[in-house]
Amino acid sequence: MKENALRGPGLLFVVSGPSGAGKDTLVDALRARMPRLRYSVSATTRPPRPGEIEGLSYYFLTPQSFQEIEAQGGFLETKTYNGNLYGTPRSYVEQNLIEGYDVIMKPDVDGALAVQRAFPQAALIFLLPDKFSYLQERLTARRTESNEEIAARLAIAHEEIAQARAFDYLVINEQSNFPGAVDDLEAILRAERHRIHRYDDSTLKRLEHS
Amino acid sequence: MKENALRGPGLLFVVSGPSGAGKDTLVDALRARMPRLRYSVSATTRPPRPGEIEGLSYYFLTPQSFQEIEAQGGFLETKTYNGNLYGTPRSYVEQNLIEGYDVIMKPDVDGALAVQRAFPQAALIFLLPDKFSYLQERLTARRTESNEEIAARLAIAHEEIAQARAFDYLVINEQSNFPGAVDDLEAILRAERHRIHRYDDSTLKRLEHS
Repeated sequence: MKENALRGPGLLFVVSGPSGAGKDTLVDALRARMPRLRYSVSATTRPPRPGEIEGLSYYFLTPQSFQEIEAQGGFLETKTYNGNLYGTPRSYVEQNLIEGYDVIMKPDVDGALAVQRAFPQAALIFLLPDKFSYLQERLTARRTESNEEIAARLAIAHEEIAQARAFDYLVINEQSNFPGAVDDLEAILRAERHRIHRYDDSTLKRLEHS
Repeated sequence: MKENALRGPGLLFVVSGPSGAGKDTLVDALRARMPRLRYSVSATTRPPRPGEIEGLSYYFLTPQSFQEIEAQGGFLETKTYNGNLYGTPRSYVEQNLIEGYDVIMKPDVDGALAVQRAFPQAALIFLLPDKFSYLQERLTARRTESNEEIAARLAIAHEEIAQARAFDYLVINEQSNFPGAVDDLEAILRAERHRIHRYDDSTLKRLEHS
């Protein structure tokens, strides 16, 4: 709404895919290019990892606070993983979309599909590495999970890939061409704005009689 | 096919919209940015305008040649306008798509919808100026048509806008920001490649087991 009367409300972009596909790095790089893009920070009850910052990496909540927010319908989607709760706060997303800002988030695959149910107009982007074996390499290099956790995440990855068809886009994060995946994502955000169903009839009428 | 095994066959992009919307300038600018993009040259029986070049602007055919090609199914779509015949040659498009090249063309709106019937996978982009009144200004500035022809084209423009919903995308060619429309078009070409239905199941399987 701010820059262009033709824009209308903001668009919601959901980037997901298996753990280790490179969502965090990719979305960080995209946000650096697109300063107007708003990022939806997830909430979790798991303890912060080294370097993680409250309100930027996650909202770190006690289980009690999390459950109170959840009971009030304050999350778009929630998930339990490894005994910890994860959720996407609803109000930040809704408020920014109303104000005309595009919003991006990176929940897990189940979370992405839950967000799609809440916002059928959201554009869902599935991210994969160009080799499945890179998932294991990246999870190992991250050194934040045990071998058992990595094995569990790889098993989940196979289930997640089976859900890729429910997404709108697939981006391959090529190991040897990271900027290419950022370009792809940026192009998707720009192109989605122009899909014909994003324009209402009154906008078309206005253009015709101008 | 040439550059990336994940690419598969080429994609077909159809840019259309009312006469005077800026299709020619926009597609020329896009082709300058994307040298791999193949351009489908239309055929016509109308005489060349000053500066038009055989095989680049159009294939200029006699009515007899045109009708022979048409009788052999050599056109994806044909149209009569002002007593002249126009058509999109089929073989150039089919051959380049098979070879993995993206192809762009700019038929009129009826032609675009005919191409969509022949290639349901084509991505159709409707182009409009940010003010309808610019159509008349541009047609007048072009000095290639009489006032009567311009009036006829503007009447057709209203009918054409009514068909915009059958397209996949709408791009607004803002008078004060021409590069923005080229950026939009370029983003659409890049993003379309990543829509999930562009990937077949074997590609997803290959990624999962790599």
